[in-house]
Amino acid sequence: MTASVNNIFRTSLPVISVLGGNVMHGMKNTDIGFKGFGEAYFSYIQKNKIKAWKKHLKMNLNLIVPLGSVMFIFMDEKGSFRKEIIGDKNTLRLSVPPGLWFGFKGIGSEVNIILNISDIIHDDNEVIRKNISEINFDWKH
Amino acid sequence: MTASVNNIFRTSLPVISVLGGNVMHGMKNTDIGFKGFGEAYFSYIQKNKIKAWKKHLKMNLNLIVPLGSVMFIFMDEKGSFRKEIIGDKNTLRLSVPPGLWFGFKGIGSEVNIILNISDIIHDDNEVIRKNISEINFDWKH
Repeated sequence: MTASVNNIFRTSLPVISVLGGNVMHGMKNTDIGFKGFGEAYFSYIQKNKIKAWKKHLKMNLNLIVPLGSVMFIFMDEKGSFRKEIIGDKNTLRLSVPPGLWFGFKGIGSEVNIILNISDIIHDDNEVIRKNISEINFDWKH
Repeated sequence: MTASVNNIFRTSLPVISVLGGNVMHGMKNTDIGFKGFGEAYFSYIQKNKIKAWKKHLKMNLNLIVPLGSVMFIFMDEKGSFRKEIIGDKNTLRLSVPPGLWFGFKGIGSEVNIILNISDIIHDDNEVIRKNISEINFDWKH
């Protein structure tokens, strides 16, 4: 199966108002997009900084932004792009199948935080990388 | 088995330096303290605010602080207290068995973030609560 940017899907994350600080859902084992728990890890991305490009050959990603705002860019094998902006003004989880090129840019606060809940443990052998200049994209927000 | 504050354990979380923003480990399915994946959710706690007290009867918690710093207070049935401060200056995960009273206070930045990776989905029937004044503790940091 060829991965397509149309296979990325978005799930709204409920936020519960609590005195002293809210609670935000991340992921449940019953959620669509949950393919098993391999690992959870955080990526920090500073404002206007970009990390790109990376493609996972096996990993299913579930991306959540608990702080700030992050612009994700995905590209599939047909060369179609998809842009998604998620974060505290748009509390969504992105479920991303393997086989897509992606990169991201911090656009919300000075530091923006991404949590990835993935179905496998990080394995450098299933990741391929390109320099940012190798895929032409206008990263202006 | 009676839960004891001695059964809480701490795991150091590796932080990888990356240009544009670091990466921090959260939890792998092979880690000690991993008892299955039920749910991941975020709690935000503002500076100097306290949320207390709560006891889970079934849930195993794995607490990570990806932003700021949080003081956690645990109390067991013998009345023993344990204080743990985790966050960006002390990147640890706390694995907490059910049966302990706990509360927490934001002490790092204006907003502090906790991620709980729990082995069961949130269920209000397995949570008991007390008002902050019902357990005497000096919350001064």
